[in-house]
Amino acid sequence: MGDRVVGVLGEGVVDAAAPVLRADDLGALRGDGCFETVRVRDAAARALDSFDAHLARLARSAAALDLAAPDGGAWHDLVAAMLAAWERSGEAVLRLVLTRGAEGGEGRPTAFAVLSPVPADTLRQRAAGVRVVTLGRGMPADAHSGAPWLLGGVKATSYAVNMAAIRHARSLGAEDVIFVSTDGQILEGPTATVVWAADGTLRTPPAEPLGILDGTTVRRLVEHAADVGLGAEVARGTVADLLAADGVWLVSSIRIAATVTELDGTALAPPADLTARVQHAAAFPGLLPA
Amino acid sequence: MGDRVVGVLGEGVVDAAAPVLRADDLGALRGDGCFETVRVRDAAARALDSFDAHLARLARSAAALDLAAPDGGAWHDLVAAMLAAWERSGEAVLRLVLTRGAEGGEGRPTAFAVLSPVPADTLRQRAAGVRVVTLGRGMPADAHSGAPWLLGGVKATSYAVNMAAIRHARSLGAEDVIFVSTDGQILEGPTATVVWAADGTLRTPPAEPLGILDGTTVRRLVEHAADVGLGAEVARGTVADLLAADGVWLVSSIRIAATVTELDGTALAPPADLTARVQHAAAFPGLLPA
Repeated sequence: MGDRVVGVLGEGVVDAAAPVLRADDLGALRGDGCFETVRVRDAAARALDSFDAHLARLARSAAALDLAAPDGGAWHDLVAAMLAAWERSGEAVLRLVLTRGAEGGEGRPTAFAVLSPVPADTLRQRAAGVRVVTLGRGMPADAHSGAPWLLGGVKATSYAVNMAAIRHARSLGAEDVIFVSTDGQILEGPTATVVWAADGTLRTPPAEPLGILDGTTVRRLVEHAADVGLGAEVARGTVADLLAADGVWLVSSIRIAATVTELDGTALAPPADLTARVQHAAAFPGLLPA
Repeated sequence: MGDRVVGVLGEGVVDAAAPVLRADDLGALRGDGCFETVRVRDAAARALDSFDAHLARLARSAAALDLAAPDGGAWHDLVAAMLAAWERSGEAVLRLVLTRGAEGGEGRPTAFAVLSPVPADTLRQRAAGVRVVTLGRGMPADAHSGAPWLLGGVKATSYAVNMAAIRHARSLGAEDVIFVSTDGQILEGPTATVVWAADGTLRTPPAEPLGILDGTTVRRLVEHAADVGLGAEVARGTVADLLAADGVWLVSSIRIAATVTELDGTALAPPADLTARVQHAAAFPGLLPA
């Protein structure tokens, strides 16, 4: 099966090396679609992290884009077939993608999924942390209020700016980015939610009204923070708050909680025990592999 | 050949109904690519509007995305083969797309093109004009200065916000949008450049530093304005300037210059002779079909 399994809704598992999108698919021409990235915690056990929460967010993204979201059951069936075809155990990355479909087609959305290994870089960052620079997002914190066409909080497949920001970070010797509003508020990473700890409490910026993604992993973290003896609250913050924090993490489905080891050139070193507790709560109900 | 012709760089003309993009193409997963929309003025005569200017802009977009742009000659050859396979004369729409390629591939960009008829809606808007609403773009006019990762002026295939804005306009009973900065400056349309006339002079906002697209059609318009007895200058403007203008147009490759007949509910009616002159200059060296 090679190193990835591809499934198309309505077709099942297809040849992973064969193309699936027409040239006039609006997902390809316009980035007009939405997606989810789901952690397969244990492929052999068919254990996915927060799969229904991901499907619910995909449905919310689709609604914001005025796309008909496929039935959740259809995704469940497709992913079951893909996992059956995946000849590996342990962790994997599952991407679900829904686009507006072919312009010259019958107006049907295109829905497909890709199952692939966790990149080595991701595993390294999860274990060793990540060097981060803050970059302006060009918008004030209230830009999305009353402006649904700006797609705040919608996980659209129009990630060119997010990808460019990560490339820019690399050109500065860092690996990842925390976006900041023009009025100095912490927003999110290009592919992660920002969490910081102060006085035994984890803080993360409010998805509403900042127009940032409502993270599935940070939701688990907030829900299970008390299990590891930490408070959790949704709160706005600034770069100064991050620099003064006991720890900063980039939280996302696959990296779970990657420690920010450097922010704009300043070394940050949260106690290892604190990171372990954050990762434990964020990875609930699984434990991170050693 | 059906109603479209598809070509893939390195392969030539392919079956238009067959898929060309892999599921893990970063163009599909992340909108990580760039594109151009070119007017085929006369397919039988192989006459394209400003093709080399489009190729030059595609190369600039690719550079901003750190993508290797194919040689212009390769695009010329592909498009010649596609036009030979296109069993129609007159106008058509040519889209060129370049993506970062398949994640599980060999790191080669994907490059393809689609040739299709001019949509009836586009022809109608060119002839009858377009009702427009202004919508906030969520950014101040200077947001892109010193922030190349925001991809100002880059024609990336991450157009989800542009498409959402047009859908929002439709929900308000309009057809198209003029984006305005948080500080009240006219930016651009989701798929067009804004031009207005005052005192015999055409004005259009500066691509630099506003971070808007450097339009190929507006370039022709500015270059040939004197031929039709009009001045032309690059100048910032506000919604009040548009409402007070002698005429406002959305200028783009396929619509050429669509008259804005209504702006935020206020009827606008430039003299027909003025629109004819604007369209004539923008369509140079061709004349618009009657």
